Amino acid sequence: MIDLNADLGEGFGRWTLTDDDQLLSVVTSANVACGFHAGDPSTMRRVCATAVERGVRIGAQVSYRDLAGFGRRTMDVPPDELADEIAYQIGALRVFAEAAGGVVAYVKPHGALYNRVVRDTGQATAVAAGILLAGGSTPVLGLPGSAMHTAARAVGLPVVTEAFADRAYTGQATLVPRTTPGAVVTDSDAIVARSLRIAREGRVESLDGSEVAVRARSLCLHGDTPGAAGIAVRVRGALTAAGVRVAAFA
Amino acid sequence: MIDLNADLGEGFGRWTLTDDDQLLSVVTSANVACGFHAGDPSTMRRVCATAVERGVRIGAQVSYRDLAGFGRRTMDVPPDELADEIAYQIGALRVFAEAAGGVVAYVKPHGALYNRVVRDTGQATAVAAGILLAGGSTPVLGLPGSAMHTAARAVGLPVVTEAFADRAYTGQATLVPRTTPGAVVTDSDAIVARSLRIAREGRVESLDGSEVAVRARSLCLHGDTPGAAGIAVRVRGALTAAGVRVAAFA
Amino acid sequence: MIDLNADLGEGFGRWTLTDDDQLLSVVTSANVACGFHAGDPSTMRRVCATAVERGVRIGAQVSYRDLAGFGRRTMDVPPDELADEIAYQIGALRVFAEAAGGVVAYVKPHGALYNRVVRDTGQATAVAAGILLAGGSTPVLGLPGSAMHTAARAVGLPVVTEAFADRAYTGQATLVPRTTPGAVVTDSDAIVARSLRIAREGRVESLDGSEVAVRARSLCLHGDTPGAAGIAVRVRGALTAAGVRVAAFA
Amino acid sequence: MIDLNADLGEGFGRWTLTDDDQLLSVVTSANVACGFHAGDPSTMRRVCATAVERGVRIGAQVSYRDLAGFGRRTMDVPPDELADEIAYQIGALRVFAEAAGGVVAYVKPHGALYNRVVRDTGQATAVAAGILLAGGSTPVLGLPGSAMHTAARAVGLPVVTEAFADRAYTGQATLVPRTTPGAVVTDSDAIVARSLRIAREGRVESLDGSEVAVRARSLCLHGDTPGAAGIAVRVRGALTAAGVRVAAFA
Repeated sequence: MIDLNADLGEGFGRWTLTDDDQLLSVVTSANVACGFHAGDPSTMRRVCATAVERGVRIGAQVSYRDLAGFGRRTMDVPPDELADEIAYQIGALRVFAEAAGGVVAYVKPHGALYNRVVRDTGQATAVAAGILLAGGSTPVLGLPGSAMHTAARAVGLPVVTEAFADRAYTGQATLVPRTTPGAVVTDSDAIVARSLRIAREGRVESLDGSEVAVRARSLCLHGDTPGAAGIAVRVRGALTAAGVRVAAFA
Repeated sequence: MIDLNADLGEGFGRWTLTDDDQLLSVVTSANVACGFHAGDPSTMRRVCATAVERGVRIGAQVSYRDLAGFGRRTMDVPPDELADEIAYQIGALRVFAEAAGGVVAYVKPHGALYNRVVRDTGQATAVAAGILLAGGSTPVLGLPGSAMHTAARAVGLPVVTEAFADRAYTGQATLVPRTTPGAVVTDSDAIVARSLRIAREGRVESLDGSEVAVRARSLCLHGDTPGAAGIAVRVRGALTAAGVRVAAFA
Repeated sequence: MIDLNADLGEGFGRWTLTDDDQLLSVVTSANVACGFHAGDPSTMRRVCATAVERGVRIGAQVSYRDLAGFGRRTMDVPPDELADEIAYQIGALRVFAEAAGGVVAYVKPHGALYNRVVRDTGQATAVAAGILLAGGSTPVLGLPGSAMHTAARAVGLPVVTEAFADRAYTGQATLVPRTTPGAVVTDSDAIVARSLRIAREGRVESLDGSEVAVRARSLCLHGDTPGAAGIAVRVRGALTAAGVRVAAFA
Repeated sequence: MIDLNADLGEGFGRWTLTDDDQLLSVVTSANVACGFHAGDPSTMRRVCATAVERGVRIGAQVSYRDLAGFGRRTMDVPPDELADEIAYQIGALRVFAEAAGGVVAYVKPHGALYNRVVRDTGQATAVAAGILLAGGSTPVLGLPGSAMHTAARAVGLPVVTEAFADRAYTGQATLVPRTTPGAVVTDSDAIVARSLRIAREGRVESLDGSEVAVRARSLCLHGDTPGAAGIAVRVRGALTAAGVRVAAFA
């Protein structure tokens, strides 16, 4: 059994990016942008409404406040401020999730914040504090072994592990930085094959050729590349055909 | 019995404006900026925490998205988008109100939006729709007879009337536009005297010298002028000395 | 002889909108977004560089400060502030135009500001003041008979008239508001035919069926719709084939 | 002979911060905020006008794009984008400097960018590239020995050294980080005494008690603290009384 998650609602005003409607027919979890790197209120409302209609789980894709950089630039935000910014985003999304009859079921940091909280305990702790501040006990979706997961567990928040079928892994099972050649897998056959191996065997071939263990409850599919929706459809089809049940995490 | 409300939390990041701490010792209702014209997440959290500590009611001071213009420039926002922007702001504030043990107890439009929904039925209806979208049945604080109050009642939202002790009224009991000489009362003795007359008699002298009826459950005190907190203290003292009970609306 | 202008560089950070590269092979004048409704610094630099390479004239497409609304929401900006905002945008663009070996050769207001200064003398005067503040004697591209052109002439700025091949005209030769059915012409054959009539005869059929005079030195082609670049190529081809010289205004 | 510089124009819209009018009577060089961390167009225009009136030199105080964080949060902006953002800010300010009859005579990075380019060669090189892109040969004001100065010299840009009378130095003549106790000197007598020693002897006592060489052509006075203008007046008075000529760098 595996969950499929993708970043959605990443337009802003006149600009669109992700093919929200198509992807909401494929994924089981929607990481909805909350206005700090993308995601205007009307887009948030529409994505939440469609997600609830189709039984897709809603997550808050929280980010640094950086529309110009799409949240992809690491920022040294003081932990207290970061926690408050996380809570603000969750609260804003919650209105639209609840108006549609859903809930904000999980939190996933976006872009530079996602990468930073793999190792930065201070910012990871701040993200966890922001989630607590927003109330409830919302799970955090992220890399197994990340500082984010450690910080979440330390304050009693559930964690959900994810893997990437279109990103290269090192021999130590961490993600190869995007600046390294070969870091992103673009061949759709390879993405499908890697998805299957991750879902069925919990293993994937690393960039150096070794086999590494990549156990994950959720598989991240990217939604902002040309053909993204088509690849997502193929991955889901292949998983189902192979007898893997595609379902949101509990 | 009268409520005292003031705009609070109107700083942004490094910039401060309202003397939040002092005013929270005087008012019974705090119109908290929600990030669109002012109000960063950390300021929102702090104002909510102090408000709850001191038994001050929290309201969402919703605005056009206009930090550069402090929400004072009328904008032709399409109604659907405006409703979504209102809901977004309420949701963001709710996180901090609830984290402090409080609730968002009312909504008050800010600046240019406040003035626009006195007469613009389309935008007033959009604000009401945004409040409904955010869930619950949150009262709207505004001018008696305004399009905002009509639109709120039309969808079943409670309304609360307010008056201004430091703004001149026309002979028809509407506010004199800020651009007219004499529109703003700056003499503190006059403000205190007008507050007393509004609270006790529901009447005030208009700019043309006639007496007009100004019945209001809440009195708005401005917080962003030099000496604002001092005047607020005097107004509250004078009301109490005159036997008027100062208390938040139910 | 006619000039072809289009809005370019209307992406922002991760988001793209206009097909800048293709359109810069067709148009003779590029209305470059300056960062207030769209247009990040890197996009501005790239568009200016390509424009100069291909001999396309650079214009400043100045706007209200409204990224979330793409400059399409009328704003009551006080005239003094509006003038300063216009000058700011021209100055920012000038750096990139001059770095590429070009100049900011004209100014064209964008979106809601464009529509507003057709009739609003106060804001039109402010735009003209902003252009003067930025130095030089930069022409203003706009509708013949507009308040913008009157205000520009009043302070000694040159004006250049433009027409729209894909927008319906009223019987009084003004643009039909976008909210009216039929306001936008989407059929590419019709757009080509209308372009030819405007360029050769200075006439076009209005929405009510009458013929109206539409004399213009420049023809505006829209760049932000699907197929926009293809239509632009056809318009230019048809004009050239018909013996109309396509060239930037002097 | 020494120059006195201060950050000015650091308000934004409704918010004010620096006492621009008073400080422009004291300093010889004004670091004018350009809109990325502070500084709206109208404030930029007013500060430039007053600076030129009083013979104060205008510099571009360029920053990361971060209004919410006042440019105090380090950001991993890719060098190409950073260069373009620097050029954009210089261009925008140039309009107002030139409208007032002045020029942008130097560039000084602000806040987190200032600190980063003390050691980060990549970003320092990007800042220098941005200055070149903006045209001319504008000097860079900064710390002696900084990566910024090295990068500026490498592309032929002049550099001007500065020192801080209200910041503690390490035994290696670098600034003590703000997070260290004692990093900021707040006693006005001490600030005056340190200013005199820096200007006359090129020396100052470090935090560990040793004497360090701090040679500088310009002395930075902070403008955003309570009493800042008063301290600046005292520093200038003491320098003049001691026979030090206070004058802008050539």
